[in-house]
Amino acid sequence: MNENPETTSDPETTSDPETKSNPETKSTLDTTRTAALKSPQCAIPFSENERVSMTHGGGGKLSQRLVDEIFFPAMENSILHRKLDAALLDCPNGTIAMTTDSYVVTPRFFPGGNIAKLSIYGTINDLAVSGATPVAISAAWILEEGLLLSELKQMAEEMGAAAREVGVPVVTGDTKVVDRGRGDGCYITTTGIGIVPHGRNIGLNRICADDAILISGTIGDHGMAIMAARGGLPISTEIFSDCAPLHELIALLVRAGIRIHAMRDPTRGGFSSALNELANAVRLGFEIEESCVPIAPLVRSACEMLGIDPWTVANEGKFLLFVPMDEAEHALKVLQNHPLGRSASIVGRVVQDHPGIVVGKTPYGTQRVVVMPSGDSLPRIC
Amino acid sequence: MNENPETTSDPETTSDPETKSNPETKSTLDTTRTAALKSPQCAIPFSENERVSMTHGGGGKLSQRLVDEIFFPAMENSILHRKLDAALLDCPNGTIAMTTDSYVVTPRFFPGGNIAKLSIYGTINDLAVSGATPVAISAAWILEEGLLLSELKQMAEEMGAAAREVGVPVVTGDTKVVDRGRGDGCYITTTGIGIVPHGRNIGLNRICADDAILISGTIGDHGMAIMAARGGLPISTEIFSDCAPLHELIALLVRAGIRIHAMRDPTRGGFSSALNELANAVRLGFEIEESCVPIAPLVRSACEMLGIDPWTVANEGKFLLFVPMDEAEHALKVLQNHPLGRSASIVGRVVQDHPGIVVGKTPYGTQRVVVMPSGDSLPRIC
Repeated sequence: MNENPETTSDPETTSDPETKSNPETKSTLDTTRTAALKSPQCAIPFSENERVSMTHGGGGKLSQRLVDEIFFPAMENSILHRKLDAALLDCPNGTIAMTTDSYVVTPRFFPGGNIAKLSIYGTINDLAVSGATPVAISAAWILEEGLLLSELKQMAEEMGAAAREVGVPVVTGDTKVVDRGRGDGCYITTTGIGIVPHGRNIGLNRICADDAILISGTIGDHGMAIMAARGGLPISTEIFSDCAPLHELIALLVRAGIRIHAMRDPTRGGFSSALNELANAVRLGFEIEESCVPIAPLVRSACEMLGIDPWTVANEGKFLLFVPMDEAEHALKVLQNHPLGRSASIVGRVVQDHPGIVVGKTPYGTQRVVVMPSGDSLPRIC
Repeated sequence: MNENPETTSDPETTSDPETKSNPETKSTLDTTRTAALKSPQCAIPFSENERVSMTHGGGGKLSQRLVDEIFFPAMENSILHRKLDAALLDCPNGTIAMTTDSYVVTPRFFPGGNIAKLSIYGTINDLAVSGATPVAISAAWILEEGLLLSELKQMAEEMGAAAREVGVPVVTGDTKVVDRGRGDGCYITTTGIGIVPHGRNIGLNRICADDAILISGTIGDHGMAIMAARGGLPISTEIFSDCAPLHELIALLVRAGIRIHAMRDPTRGGFSSALNELANAVRLGFEIEESCVPIAPLVRSACEMLGIDPWTVANEGKFLLFVPMDEAEHALKVLQNHPLGRSASIVGRVVQDHPGIVVGKTPYGTQRVVVMPSGDSLPRIC
């Protein structure tokens, strides 16, 4: 077993193009992962009319067929294949990070992503912003009777592909079926575990006055993409979700030696909610230069049309970064050198004043208190 | 950090009656757990009419209230309280076991248990039968708009109480709200992680010919309790679910020095399904003495009335145990000395013949092939 995920590198794994894209995590589970990540096998196609029935959830032959013909081929990895009550993983010693999220997004397929991809990326991101190297993911599916098996297969394949893309296997899972009218096609709950390597010290307690606050890119894309996909926008152009895995971008910051104080991904409730939660948790004030907050023109105009504050709209591929002020420019360069951080920006700083309060400053010298949104402007965004 | 969960024992933790009931796991996370497990705080009662709204799932103020007023007081532990994107746990070195299950049982409250309790016990049992010492649990709730907050609070408290009972904290969670008519009140997905101590070698690969097969108690209780609770039985007496955590009973076997080859909890699909899965996985035959399989008289008569095979009915507090034949009597005594194993029985043996096939033998000398049930006789059992 590999005791230190940072210093070893197995040439076998780096030759695999699937895991190469994830340089930080590839060596964590070296032997397990190379065995665990294979390409999907070809599965028998389902007819257009075949649907999920209650019997698929009964633990008998049909449940087994669902696993053997849909989930295993899509998620193909040796750990899952052992069919144990619990997946067994050899892990390096260290602090374990654990995170869970249910995904109930509607529609399930939207420009830039889908529920299955989102469930993998979202979990990876929660681990990555905690400073953890992702190790394994579990996936629990709640299916509504009547869901097309062909769609389920497509979602399973999207999940498998996303897991291979990030180099982290789906090692265990569960499927339940609920009666027609008691679900909405498909809900997915993913749980991720990761390892925080010894000596990596990232956490809210490290945020201090005079830290710079950066955002890794434009805000509001995911939420507005979902709204547009629901037909709620009087525009014809598509807005794409920013749905993406952030662990690689964060690994670049770590490797560049940036002293990361803390990170957070502003998902539900958006930029405003994440900033307020953090300011409140650390009892410091945040000052945000409103003109520095990157917002895509299409997202901005869609928000203006609907009277929605883009700062409160969900993101699924962005993170807030807190670093010492003198490292802000370096961090910005590292972020901007990666496709996912191209629009990164230094947006503000941490101050001793007004603890727990986020203040937005305009170029005209005016200020406003950025409040915690009272609810999401759009439910079932993730 | 404690490197070896088996050899150290903190007198501070053993003095706590909550953790004392769980002698095997108490020292795994010694410092973390004593800090993590406190009694629930008193929370403000909700009015009888307050219900879950879509805004509770929006990530804003109301979501925060749900967490602060319902989940945190019920689950009260220091790890959860850090409000991180991912919970951080100091774990001893070893193999990590990971398991996940969604719970969609209906009704949510039934004689002998409820959905929240079941979600904790079920996860603990999957870890325990894998030979793992449970370390932490995550809980993701999918709530339907309109659920009474008072019921949600009751379920959260049941979950917190069950977690304290088994001595394993709920360290992270998530809540989503779906529109009225798109759920069924409440679905819970729990994921558990545990550590398999070095040297503990339990797994299907260890099952071999001439192993004894034991069951830890009567079968069919959970499924028939659910059926009775749904009003599907023409009887007035209540059948109680066997819903219980098995880690303590399994720890007793380990401490008694029993060479456990493998274990499995026969949940969905029941005794028949679990045996068939295992026989098929290990490519050996199983012979079951039908008269030795314990079934409570009330469960037996309810099954007879409805023409249901009790061997296919779900259990939530039983496990199959495979041990060398010469240790079967010793294992049986250990099981029967614990309240949860009182009705334990040696039910059969593993044979080289008919690989993958489970054969039931009657006292009259006849035999039958025990087939994998084609579906569950009752959906949404767990």
